[in-house]
Amino acid sequence: MRELGRHLIFEFSGCDGVLLNDSKRIEEVLVKAAEKSGMKVVGKASHKFGSQGVTSVIILAESHIVVHTWPEYGYVAIDIFVCGSAAQPMRAYEEVLRAFSPKSVSALEVKRGLIRA
Amino acid sequence: MRELGRHLIFEFSGCDGVLLNDSKRIEEVLVKAAEKSGMKVVGKASHKFGSQGVTSVIILAESHIVVHTWPEYGYVAIDIFVCGSAAQPMRAYEEVLRAFSPKSVSALEVKRGLIRA
Repeated sequence: MRELGRHLIFEFSGCDGVLLNDSKRIEEVLVKAAEKSGMKVVGKASHKFGSQGVTSVIILAESHIVVHTWPEYGYVAIDIFVCGSAAQPMRAYEEVLRAFSPKSVSALEVKRGLIRA
Repeated sequence: MRELGRHLIFEFSGCDGVLLNDSKRIEEVLVKAAEKSGMKVVGKASHKFGSQGVTSVIILAESHIVVHTWPEYGYVAIDIFVCGSAAQPMRAYEEVLRAFSPKSVSALEVKRGLIRA
């Protein structure tokens, strides 16, 4: 068996609230994270919510990274979904970790699309 | 404890390969799925890969839906991430299920951002 995609799910708690409301900066962080891990950005979309919080998604040639922020809780949900053996998602993780500087992190990996190989 | 987000992870196998290469139609499916579940689309981005396969993301006022397709395996990875008690993600699920008509489905729910409440 092998997986078509690796889906890394991160929970960042205790993040600084200022960055968590800055959609432009968050998008820059995600693009940099993709570049550092050798992934190619092919599309992106962000939304800043009226009250507070940001959603930012970048589509990669190797799948996607999506971030949702809750500044009022200092919480960020990050998903890094990659396909292909060349992608190095942990390099992208290191970049978002550096940017958001959470006080605590939890992580989960889900293998997506298990096929016979 | 309560969660800030509900993250539903679906694996669709045995889907029809034609739809899986049609990025415009897939985006329409996701928008309809969001509408049927009472969610509001605030952004979207799609990418059709040169060889085969589509990535499509819609950003919702209630978080996001993202789809990756592998037509060569009849496989679709779908994530429906919602926040707020009003969102009804299973209605969105029913719509994508109807559209992709998979022969088999597996599902996982991850509670994101557990906070004291």
